Amino acid sequence: MNELILVGNHENVNPEIIDDGKNAKGVEKRVLIGLKEGAPNYIMRHFKIKAGGFTPDHAHPWEHEVYVLSGSGILKTPEGEKTIKTGDYVFVSANEKHQFCAQNDSIEFICVIPKYGQ
Amino acid sequence: MNELILVGNHENVNPEIIDDGKNAKGVEKRVLIGLKEGAPNYIMRHFKIKAGGFTPDHAHPWEHEVYVLSGSGILKTPEGEKTIKTGDYVFVSANEKHQFCAQNDSIEFICVIPKYGQ
Repeated sequence: MNELILVGNHENVNPEIIDDGKNAKGVEKRVLIGLKEGAPNYIMRHFKIKAGGFTPDHAHPWEHEVYVLSGSGILKTPEGEKTIKTGDYVFVSANEKHQFCAQNDSIEFICVIPKYGQ
Repeated sequence: MNELILVGNHENVNPEIIDDGKNAKGVEKRVLIGLKEGAPNYIMRHFKIKAGGFTPDHAHPWEHEVYVLSGSGILKTPEGEKTIKTGDYVFVSANEKHQFCAQNDSIEFICVIPKYGQ
């Protein structure tokens, strides 16, 4: 049975390393609150991108709701590049191309997706 | 029309002050990504509770997915009190009683709810 109230620290969650050296580089992904923790509707994940790293440049039929925890980087979109930094929130609509890139600094953010985006 | 990709900083969002001195005290709530920003499924809010402040002790038929951005505090639940601090995530299941309390320290966190919890 899942706990009705669950508290954990992101540092104790094992990361998935996303790095094929081409489409994605230097990305650690941690699922904090997912289906196995009992999330019924949406999933909270934690991402850390090392300086010089990036997520895939892609689109998918679900939205992202992001909050930047630390560092800074660039969000590449069809409309251009947007600087993102600690304390910023980002909404990426479904089907919009997007790529999160760390440059000289690393960046950490929370990214929430609907459960059907798993 | 909403922006397909929206970037903002939480400090530029006007807070709702939640403080009746009895059920809630010293709480600032900011809706970062809500219906008016185009969120189709779930809403990202930012909360700041001053030292000594607290949210209402209540329950509702939707879940919370929380990430603690800074500071520390206590989550009061029917099963007891849990300390929460920077870097922690918290899942509160639907219908579970919960109260977020700042003690000597202030606390800031992100709290995501389904859109029907607005």
